[in-house]
Amino acid sequence: PMTTTQTYHIAVIPGDGIGKEIIPIAQAALEKAAEGAAHFAYEPFDLGAERYLRDGAILPDEDLERIKRADAILLGAIGDPRIKAGILERGLLLKLRFALDQYVNLRPSKLYKGVTSPLANPGDIDFVVVREGTEGLYCGAGGAIRRDTPAEVATEVSINTAYGVERVVRYAFELAMKRRKHVTLVHKKNVLVNAGDMWQRIVDRVGAEYPEVSHDYQHIDAATIFLVSDPSRFDVILTDNLFGDILTDEAGAVVGGVGYSASGCINASNEYPSMFEPIHGSAPDIAGKGIANPTAAILSTAMLLRHLGFDEPAVRIERAVEADIEELGSAQRSTQQVGQDILARL
Amino acid sequence: PMTTTQTYHIAVIPGDGIGKEIIPIAQAALEKAAEGAAHFAYEPFDLGAERYLRDGAILPDEDLERIKRADAILLGAIGDPRIKAGILERGLLLKLRFALDQYVNLRPSKLYKGVTSPLANPGDIDFVVVREGTEGLYCGAGGAIRRDTPAEVATEVSINTAYGVERVVRYAFELAMKRRKHVTLVHKKNVLVNAGDMWQRIVDRVGAEYPEVSHDYQHIDAATIFLVSDPSRFDVILTDNLFGDILTDEAGAVVGGVGYSASGCINASNEYPSMFEPIHGSAPDIAGKGIANPTAAILSTAMLLRHLGFDEPAVRIERAVEADIEELGSAQRSTQQVGQDILARL
Ligand SMILES: CC(C)[C@H](C(=O)O)[C@@H](O)C(=O)O
Ligand SMILES: CC(C)[C@H](C(=O)O)[C@@H](O)C(=O)O
Repeated sequence: PMTTTQTYHIAVIPGDGIGKEIIPIAQAALEKAAEGAAHFAYEPFDLGAERYLRDGAILPDEDLERIKRADAILLGAIGDPRIKAGILERGLLLKLRFALDQYVNLRPSKLYKGVTSPLANPGDIDFVVVREGTEGLYCGAGGAIRRDTPAEVATEVSINTAYGVERVVRYAFELAMKRRKHVTLVHKKNVLVNAGDMWQRIVDRVGAEYPEVSHDYQHIDAATIFLVSDPSRFDVILTDNLFGDILTDEAGAVVGGVGYSASGCINASNEYPSMFEPIHGSAPDIAGKGIANPTAAILSTAMLLRHLGFDEPAVRIERAVEADIEELGSAQRSTQQVGQDILARL
Repeated sequence: PMTTTQTYHIAVIPGDGIGKEIIPIAQAALEKAAEGAAHFAYEPFDLGAERYLRDGAILPDEDLERIKRADAILLGAIGDPRIKAGILERGLLLKLRFALDQYVNLRPSKLYKGVTSPLANPGDIDFVVVREGTEGLYCGAGGAIRRDTPAEVATEVSINTAYGVERVVRYAFELAMKRRKHVTLVHKKNVLVNAGDMWQRIVDRVGAEYPEVSHDYQHIDAATIFLVSDPSRFDVILTDNLFGDILTDEAGAVVGGVGYSASGCINASNEYPSMFEPIHGSAPDIAGKGIANPTAAILSTAMLLRHLGFDEPAVRIERAVEADIEELGSAQRSTQQVGQDILARL
């Protein structure tokens, strides 16, 4: 039978620091894994600290419009110590997540064989955090009066809607159906009673439509304990934007470092492209040294492939990464070397 | 020389669940440690779930007024699964913290010899979290419209003032002067730019008055990583109300369980009494079984003693607890037994 390979347009934003070092490796892995199944056309975007320092641009409208037309986005990392905290994060990374309505921030945590967890008895760790991506304290609603005086007041507002919560809750239950069928809602409903109560009501209501999926609840503070004391209890963790940010970094540490943690910022209704990125940051302390681990970026391309419907190449990448970590995970290797080793297995 | 022992009035709120089991033990330790140095008169308060279920009262004004006249407060734990999340927490625990302007929530974390940390290589862990206690997302400013409809919107507002931040920042730097002279500000200033920027500016300004104390900054997500990967790097962690809640529970897990973690809700200007409580909750799952660990509650009385100026009895309690944990920390013991063992060393 004749097969045609479709061309997918991938917007590539290496960004800052080690983002620039790992993204080319991730692209090479994507290319090799998808050979014969899909064809990719890459459009690189010069966005991040260098661009901002050069001409003041953070995310020009014309770039955003071009990115909107891509089939998916591959992003490295955003953030640079030379630039005041928040400018690039909010103006570029969060702007993309919000403008492209990427309401599911999907972050799997898995302890790979060959990786040393900082925990003495980690057990089998394999859960996914479904973090809401377009609401909560991340919407930028807040302000300050009498700045820099003794009478200054600064506010941050968390905005949560039934519309925004219900869609991510549904996603989590659907995902649980394909996994071990358990959802844990994490919030702080004993203090944040308005938002917490709404989350809990929506989880209870949607959960009733999934009788096979059990669900429970933990306060964010208790969840940070269980991530350390009993991480294998979790299957799908469902939580808001800020709590998801916190839990996934702690989870990354627990599975041996954020260097193995990929993520997808997903517009599950496919109106806009989804974005795939390692959960680690730009790591200015090791940038330029050629020692950043490209594994999380490579795993992000597996999530990208799966999102576009290419399960088989996605599995191929995951298997190659697993085999690489099991055999060589504890070896000191350069970014290039890890890339070569994983590519050789594809 | 003739010595007189002053009488201090201690308001005792055992509260819910295991709070009722551990507080009598803590009182006995306090009594024994302070023998000859101070005399305590205890006023018990029937507040918590039982009272609420009986007559609907959470924190009657007359109780609050009597509590306000105490020299210090000893509290067990608040929270009961029979009661909707938030009612007792906000109506009783947080109401006390706010009404008594307990702006420093002081939470030491120490890995005692004899305790098994869940970390494979914990190192020497000995830091204090200085958590702001009267602002941020805890002030209850938020609401909901169109509740229980698809158009519901729920908000939570974090209110932060220069007045409130500066006083807790000063406390942290003063504390650091008596310790290893390092303060780590934890926030999320790359997203919560209004509050985060104010915290950072105030830390920079106050920090300049303490040239011997170094200070750095970490995002909350990164801090949760370091608590797992390198907890001994911390000396004084300074943070807001919500981040402090999260970090101290994670820290409790890292030092082998919140059963060893005491805390003080401190009104450092002494206009109102300060309150001392274990950081663990009411633990309904083990309540009534006589197996709750009273160590954190006992350590809370050491903080109470130190706050009232009795350093020597405070040290005595801490030494007794340390010796007990080193020798018997891993043994399965009843609440009573742990109490007896520690008391025997006083
Ligand atoms: C860089 C920052 C804005 C971002 C976030 O908080 O979402 C990062 O920590 C992440 O988790 O992707
Ligand atoms: C019970 C709850 C309101 C409280 C808090 O969030 O402060 C508790 O978790 C704590 O840390 O003392």
